[in-house]
Formats: sequence, C-alpha cells, structure tokens
Amino acid sequence: MKPAPPADTRKDFPLITEIQTRWDDNDVYGHVNNVVYYAYFDTVINRYLIDHGLEIEGAAIGVCVESACRYLREIAFPDRIDAGLRVTNIGRSSVRYEIGIFASGGELCALGHFVHVFVDSATRKPVTIPQNIRAALTALRSSSPAAQP
Amino acid sequence: MKPAPPADTRKDFPLITEIQTRWDDNDVYGHVNNVVYYAYFDTVINRYLIDHGLEIEGAAIGVCVESACRYLREIAFPDRIDAGLRVTNIGRSSVRYEIGIFASGGELCALGHFVHVFVDSATRKPVTIPQNIRAALTALRSSSPAAQP
Amino acid sequence: MKPAPPADTRKDFPLITEIQTRWDDNDVYGHVNNVVYYAYFDTVINRYLIDHGLEIEGAAIGVCVESACRYLREIAFPDRIDAGLRVTNIGRSSVRYEIGIFASGGELCALGHFVHVFVDSATRKPVTIPQNIRAALTALRSSSPAAQP
Amino acid sequence: MKPAPPADTRKDFPLITEIQTRWDDNDVYGHVNNVVYYAYFDTVINRYLIDHGLEIEGAAIGVCVESACRYLREIAFPDRIDAGLRVTNIGRSSVRYEIGIFASGGELCALGHFVHVFVDSATRKPVTIPQNIRAALTALRSSSPAAQP
Repeated sequence: MKPAPPADTRKDFPLITEIQTRWDDNDVYGHVNNVVYYAYFDTVINRYLIDHGLEIEGAAIGVCVESACRYLREIAFPDRIDAGLRVTNIGRSSVRYEIGIFASGGELCALGHFVHVFVDSATRKPVTIPQNIRAALTALRSSSPAAQP
Repeated sequence: MKPAPPADTRKDFPLITEIQTRWDDNDVYGHVNNVVYYAYFDTVINRYLIDHGLEIEGAAIGVCVESACRYLREIAFPDRIDAGLRVTNIGRSSVRYEIGIFASGGELCALGHFVHVFVDSATRKPVTIPQNIRAALTALRSSSPAAQP
Repeated sequence: MKPAPPADTRKDFPLITEIQTRWDDNDVYGHVNNVVYYAYFDTVINRYLIDHGLEIEGAAIGVCVESACRYLREIAFPDRIDAGLRVTNIGRSSVRYEIGIFASGGELCALGHFVHVFVDSATRKPVTIPQNIRAALTALRSSSPAAQP
Repeated sequence: MKPAPPADTRKDFPLITEIQTRWDDNDVYGHVNNVVYYAYFDTVINRYLIDHGLEIEGAAIGVCVESACRYLREIAFPDRIDAGLRVTNIGRSSVRYEIGIFASGGELCALGHFVHVFVDSATRKPVTIPQNIRAALTALRSSSPAAQP
C-alpha cells in the first residue's frame, strides 16, 4: 500500500544547491526538525526564480498551494547538505516542483514536492506564468518518474 | 484529476486548539508563510501527546516520516486561528494525524496530514506505541473521510 | 561590575500578554532557544501597535535598530508564559521598550529591550511617530527603573 | 549619549564565515527580520565550537545568558552575507563574543554580542571552560575596542 521508498540520486535533479544548516534547525531530538525542510524548499525554489527574473515585489508572485515531504534519514546541524530541484508539471498558472535533500555522502534524506500558483500580487487571482519564469521552469523539467508524496 | 477542495469544519475534529500567530509568521507577501503551518501542526500534536504522557526525553519518541499540507485561504498575523486535530490511522508503531487550520470565522484555511513513527530514542528503531499514548491517540480517532493531501 | 540581576515582577509592566510556546521553540538543549525570545518581543510589541492603529502596510513603519536580552531562567515548550511590556523612552521618531518574560509561577525568566525607529515605508527615512501610535506608546510609559541590558 | 555607530570592517574579526540567507528570513518589510540575526550569531558561534571539539551532547554545554544587536543597514534574501566573529572576554566559565554582519560589498550591517556560560549539561551549574574549547576561543581573541551594544 505504502509506496516504496524513493531512491533518487543527485543525478535525477537538474539543479543542485548547497544548503547551510543552522543551529536552530535542530530540535530537541538533535536532528533537523521536520518543519525546517520546507524552509529549505522555499529557499531553493525562490532563489532560482529570483536568479531568473522573479521580482519579489512584482506584479506576479508565486504562492504555495500544496507541499509535502517524506523523511528518509536524519540530518543535523552542522551538516552541509545539498538540495536537488526539478520541475514535474507546468500549467498555465501553476508549477509543481520536487526537491530532494541529500547528505554530503549522497544519500537521499528527504523527498518533497511543492506547488506554486502564480497570482496577481494585488488581487491574488491566478495569472499566466510570466514568460521569463516559464522559460526558467522549463529548463528544470525532468523526465524522472514523479515522486509519490 | 485534482481532488475537490476539502470542506471540513471544526466539527470534523475531536480536538480544537487556539493558536497564536506571531509577527515573524508573516513573510514578505504579508501572509503566514507556508512553512509555518507545519510548526503549528508539530505544536498541536506534541502538546496533545505531552499532555497525555509523552515524555520528551523518554524512551519512545515520535519522529515525523511524512507531512503534507494544502493551502486554501491566506491567514496573517495578528489573526487568532484554531487548529483541529484528528487521527485517521493507528498502526503498531505509527499514527497518521490530520490537522485543519481555521480562521476565527470558521473558514477552513489549510488541511494537512502528519505521520509519526514511534522509535526508541537511542537506537531510532521503531517500537510499539506506548499504551498511554495509544489510548490518547484512539480518543482522537475520527470517522470522517480521510483528507486527500 | 556586572549589573545585579533584574528582579522585576509582572506588576512592573503596564501590559501583560500570554504567549504560547511552540514545539520548535525548544532547541537541542530542551529549552527555548535564545533566538526565540526576540520573536516573542517582536510579536508582543507589534500586536500592541496593530491593536492601536499601526498599519503593517502603512506609510510609517517601525524598524528595529537595537535589541538585547538577558536570560535568567530556562523556559521550555509546552510552558505557557507571560510577556510584560513597558515603554521607557519616547523620542520624536524612536521608542524604547522593555519586555519581561515570566514563567507561569511569576518568576522573571528574561528581560530585554527593543528600540523601534519609525520610518517612511518607501524612503526608510525617520518620521515623527504618528499621533495615534504615540498615544498608545505613552500609555505604556513606566516609571520603573530602566533595565540594564 | 548614544554611542557612535560602529565602523568595524571584516579585518577586525579573526574569523569570517559566509552565511546563506533564506526566503523566510525576510519579514513583511522585505528585509531580514531582526530576530534572524541572532540565529546567524548562534550558528556561527556553535559551528566554530563544534569544529573545535564541542560535543552537542557532551558534559559541558554553552548556554546563552546575554545577547544584543545593533542594526545599521538592511539586508535581504537572497543576499549572501558574511559574519565576522571575535572574542572579547574569556572568564573561568564564560566567554563574550562579538559578531559583525557584512554585506557582500563589505559594509557593516549589524554588530552584536553574545555571552555563553558553560554549564554541566545535567545540573546546569557553571563549569570551567574545557581546555580544548578555551584554546579555540583564545584564538579568536581580538584587541579591537569592544563594541558598545
């Protein structure tokens, strides 16, 4: 019933970004708290978008309508980790990303997904993804089988 | 293809807890950042478990192996919000929760799920859910249809 | 050389607000991380200002130019705590707050200060504190001896 | 009365560490929230200590008894910034650090201090700073005039 654990490697992601962990990423159990992975996701995605022309204060902004994560292995500050990013679907207004978190040895530690809908920053109504953003997203399209979370 | 938006109300959750938002819950878009909802989930679940006998430094601890959230309406500091909590599955070692976030007027703003596996705090191997915790979880069992995220 | 530990009580603060701790406020040492106290400060101050007319997206916004905290006793999630707020100085553009964090039994756990400068939200140049905000701040003036941090 | 704004440069700090900003470091005003600087401080200090032998789960742990920050210029995600670290006092049990946050162009954006007391992790009573930690701290001693916050 439960899907098999994902076995993605860094090669399954067109973009790999190193992430610095922080002291307060660790919770009382001595590992990075489950919440913090989503801060990694948000950061990797938005840094990529900003590098490719998204304006934080622009007319079209991406808002998250869905996110999910499966946690496979613990990580802990002060580990240095990598995040892999790929795009699995691009619609008129929305895009679905998948993010893999890797330990420095290459083990997959978590796999998540994240759906952005682009909206007008004033009205919050969906808009067509701006052309420069769409091009950047298309460059991250992956033919890997979609993750299950 | 996409599941219909959930329409749960506070009555669909055996436990309702008020949550205080914080200034830094809001991100640059002036609403509670998607990451923060998971901090609400973690807090509501763990407060309930601690109130019912979970010892943070005990032999059996709950670690998150999966979480997800669908975001339906924006909320923003300084809103006061409610979190509803229910349990949809209890196994030997694991439990699946669903959490609804409600605006003060009762509108469902987000619906998520969260899976805990109870493990030995030293070896991190799964253990049977302790009896007092199981009883507390059973009290939150809900016959509502499982949410789809 | 070191100033004597402060001995303020809840009576030394014109405003007392209850604060909910969160699971991820605790760090690996099992107590609320030093960073999180500043999130409490920010929240208590801004909630008060918003309740008294500050518009988050308004023309005049308060930006923090200085903050400090002395940590006296540990607190930990799921403690319920109180924050006391008082104003010790009001200038043309700036205001200095002091915040006390109290355990439920009334013990002072931390004492901090926080300085806001009100600026034009577009130019970020200092402006005169708006009249409605000044009135609200004046209501929190305290004749208690200023704390030393 | 107010001390002159500090004018430290990166050369005034024996250790410089690059820090990655995160999406959720920015608050509604589009800049790194005042709280987050303390997460940077905690991270830089603890990474250094761990690199030099501090064991997070060891017998002697450093707990923060005082911290402060003066904010001089705004920074914002996705800026890459540097943190400078120096030690200004080492006692039997305690150490006082100063941290400078620098923009990529070298401008000083914030200057803070942070005091650790080393305590027994079980009893939380002060202990003598372990020899390997003391040696590492001594290597960061600075003769620069102490900052004023």
